Amino acid sequence: MGLRIGIIGSGAIGTYYGAKLAHAGRDVHFLMRGDLANVRREGIFVRGEGENFRVATINCYNSTTEIGLCDLVIIAVKATSNSDLVDLVPPLLHDRTMLLTLQNGLGNDEFLAEHFGAERVLGGLCFIALQRVSRTEIERYAYGHIVLGEFGGASQPRAREVAAEFNRAGVQCAVTDDLALERWRKLIWNIPFNGLSIVAGGIDTAAIVGDKDLRHATLELMDEVITAANKCGHALPSDAWREHMERGEKMGTYKPSTLLDWEAGRPLEIEPIWGEPSRRAVAAGGRMPRTEMIYALLKQLDLRRPSPVASRLPLPGRGEDRGEGWPQLS
Amino acid sequence: MGLRIGIIGSGAIGTYYGAKLAHAGRDVHFLMRGDLANVRREGIFVRGEGENFRVATINCYNSTTEIGLCDLVIIAVKATSNSDLVDLVPPLLHDRTMLLTLQNGLGNDEFLAEHFGAERVLGGLCFIALQRVSRTEIERYAYGHIVLGEFGGASQPRAREVAAEFNRAGVQCAVTDDLALERWRKLIWNIPFNGLSIVAGGIDTAAIVGDKDLRHATLELMDEVITAANKCGHALPSDAWREHMERGEKMGTYKPSTLLDWEAGRPLEIEPIWGEPSRRAVAAGGRMPRTEMIYALLKQLDLRRPSPVASRLPLPGRGEDRGEGWPQLS
Repeated sequence: MGLRIGIIGSGAIGTYYGAKLAHAGRDVHFLMRGDLANVRREGIFVRGEGENFRVATINCYNSTTEIGLCDLVIIAVKATSNSDLVDLVPPLLHDRTMLLTLQNGLGNDEFLAEHFGAERVLGGLCFIALQRVSRTEIERYAYGHIVLGEFGGASQPRAREVAAEFNRAGVQCAVTDDLALERWRKLIWNIPFNGLSIVAGGIDTAAIVGDKDLRHATLELMDEVITAANKCGHALPSDAWREHMERGEKMGTYKPSTLLDWEAGRPLEIEPIWGEPSRRAVAAGGRMPRTEMIYALLKQLDLRRPSPVASRLPLPGRGEDRGEGWPQLS
Repeated sequence: MGLRIGIIGSGAIGTYYGAKLAHAGRDVHFLMRGDLANVRREGIFVRGEGENFRVATINCYNSTTEIGLCDLVIIAVKATSNSDLVDLVPPLLHDRTMLLTLQNGLGNDEFLAEHFGAERVLGGLCFIALQRVSRTEIERYAYGHIVLGEFGGASQPRAREVAAEFNRAGVQCAVTDDLALERWRKLIWNIPFNGLSIVAGGIDTAAIVGDKDLRHATLELMDEVITAANKCGHALPSDAWREHMERGEKMGTYKPSTLLDWEAGRPLEIEPIWGEPSRRAVAAGGRMPRTEMIYALLKQLDLRRPSPVASRLPLPGRGEDRGEGWPQLS
């Protein structure tokens, strides 16, 4: 049967990868809240280039106690809900249960390590443009691959075992021996594009790279991330910005996930993407002045948002969201 | 009779100082547009601590040709309208006409010098919290003094003569031998407070200094201005930020003039306050990364403002504006 897999966090990322694994016949168990009844009744639909399937029967539960022990727990909640994990995760753990966080930014690996033991923790970086279009439907717009690694060390055989689970389910998954380096590399994208898209007034990537001054700011931010990574001991090459800038130029009118969160009134992952990297740079004797500025602005803008939605995993109706048609690149 | 004085730009600053001079019996002539009929009919009312007066008869005109030759022309238009001055100013000029710009930031002295001759140009820094509360009424909330100097050199006797005109009219006016240094000193205030008040979502000075991260950003910006000034050859002491921070802390819930402009849909003086200082720092081999970031964001936010007002000098009705009661510190 392979690994018994729990999915904690049923936003776009958790639902998509969980559904892929379930569709491939893996033993997958979802924690769900508001969507539980709909998913039990209708299953999960996934659409995207080269895939179009429904998983009719989804194992989903109201509590992790009902799920019980798992071999692998995939963590896909927003980092702003990490404190909930302290109670949610323990019922899932046996001695060798692995925790794989698919969350963005820095600090989530450490949070899991602190609460559940560093030896359990793996981290995965998702390169995917996704959107939940209703409670039971996910649309994948681009990419889909994962890069995963062990927290705090070189990959062990189990990392390849987890990657194999994904690969068998049709998700390209590579293993890295340096998770921390890859996290910093992904920040070269997230820090400028996710940040500027909000603080510049709610604009997409095309508007950012198409504006002389914002394009300049993007390049400066990318350089700042690379310099800070190196200061922190993660050897990103000085031209590591190039692939990200080229991607930004090719993507067209694309809204980063944080902007979608902002527009939908969902919590923003400000600490892992802007706060923690800035603090680590300072601790290593460096500075990220532009990143710090975005951090301060996002916190203030977030504080002053008119009406955050009550539900933790709000989901606009299909028509409402599809009307805009913006994919989400995690 | 003293100097024949023309006032170009009848926003809060031009109207206030012009009215003070006129009230003191000086020979003052205003260029006006939308407000001409009202001011001809009602005069100008000025209220503030220790002053409460009406100038019943205001010399105001539709064109500078009607005004004719002046000894002193006070320039108080928004920097975004500087190009209009190319046609507006010449009818006012005799051989020794002085041009005194009361505009904020860097680059306005140079603009006047380029078009009308450097030898004519003086610059004045206004420290004043003002608001036009209707087409014919100005309310002064705090301060009021001016520091003026010659463009590009030590003060000549004429600078003292102009200062004396103001002092006789009850406006404290000091003369500096280093106008450029004083312009940079004022930017220590304007760059952080005017900028953050907009890009952080429309907040007042109390919200800026009361937020840990924005306060930090303010101090970093102030330090950046001081470092850039020194790089450009203007010797601001390293603790020059202190008086500005203390002022920011004492002012309470105060909206910088640029935020008031933003809220009213008026043009923003982005170039003189953020653009030109950043460019001068770069030209001198320095950088102002945080200022550059604010510059890029303001330009983008400005570009995307829903509906700029048509009139150059729009003015909300008395009740509407007074309801908020925010003074404007130039």
